[in-house]
Amino acid sequence: MLILGIDPGLQNLGWGVIRVEGNKIAHVANGIIHGEGTGLAQRLLALHEGLTSVVRSHAPDEAAVEHVFVNRDGAGTLKLGQARGIAMLVPAQFGLEVGEYAPNKIKKTVVGVGHAEKHQVQHMVKLQLPGVQLAGPDAADALAVALCHAHYRSSGLARAMRRSA
Amino acid sequence: MLILGIDPGLQNLGWGVIRVEGNKIAHVANGIIHGEGTGLAQRLLALHEGLTSVVRSHAPDEAAVEHVFVNRDGAGTLKLGQARGIAMLVPAQFGLEVGEYAPNKIKKTVVGVGHAEKHQVQHMVKLQLPGVQLAGPDAADALAVALCHAHYRSSGLARAMRRSA
Repeated sequence: MLILGIDPGLQNLGWGVIRVEGNKIAHVANGIIHGEGTGLAQRLLALHEGLTSVVRSHAPDEAAVEHVFVNRDGAGTLKLGQARGIAMLVPAQFGLEVGEYAPNKIKKTVVGVGHAEKHQVQHMVKLQLPGVQLAGPDAADALAVALCHAHYRSSGLARAMRRSA
Repeated sequence: MLILGIDPGLQNLGWGVIRVEGNKIAHVANGIIHGEGTGLAQRLLALHEGLTSVVRSHAPDEAAVEHVFVNRDGAGTLKLGQARGIAMLVPAQFGLEVGEYAPNKIKKTVVGVGHAEKHQVQHMVKLQLPGVQLAGPDAADALAVALCHAHYRSSGLARAMRRSA
């Protein structure tokens, strides 16, 4: 099955797709969508079109988005919220479940500690997805979200199987 | 021409359509879309589908959205941002220009003062759009945004005509 991870941002929206089969995880694709255009509505439209194109091309089975914490200025939070609205909407438009994971949960799953630096996340993403060529830090973060979803998804599945056994 | 005004919110997204012909302004329709569903992605999808349906039904020529100021808690700002992302996206998907107006500019245009109370806005919206039945306060705010856009749009037009004369 394919998992799409998204790291929302108005200027740079990172995305990454991984394939999960049993215990095997492999990189499929990653990239960055730029919210380009004159005015906010056009920038959001660019994000929506870019992300829609990614979902059409790769047909993921599930999606996961970073659950952002609000630790910056209000204007920044509003901008991020607007981009995140698009990031949550597009998978839902394709009928996909959209998982949400807090940043420290993602880091703890991928790096082992909740307060990892950005370069550590990139390092561990590369280690877990051999051969990956990262489009940039936002794409690495998106792949980290996908890896986190793969982990919690399979644990959930394992629990469900134990319950039904 | 028809103008769509939108007052974004995750729970209640108000919308209102007015018709502007020369100096005449008339009410066309107004309503509230509820962001219902299990989970954020489903709620945003409900807003997107509801607003898309409004634009399809009424085929407005232009749209305007309240430019929110960030004066509440961060989590509230993020939620509002996510809903506002959808409010800005939908008109852009139909190729409409999307005007943005600050709340005090809207109030000053519709009520005459920048710090008007909500009931004053409703009163003046009713006065300027005779016979209107308001679906609720959020729909009144949406009509106020549309009225504000009608005002600034025509002033802009008037200025352009003076320049070309």
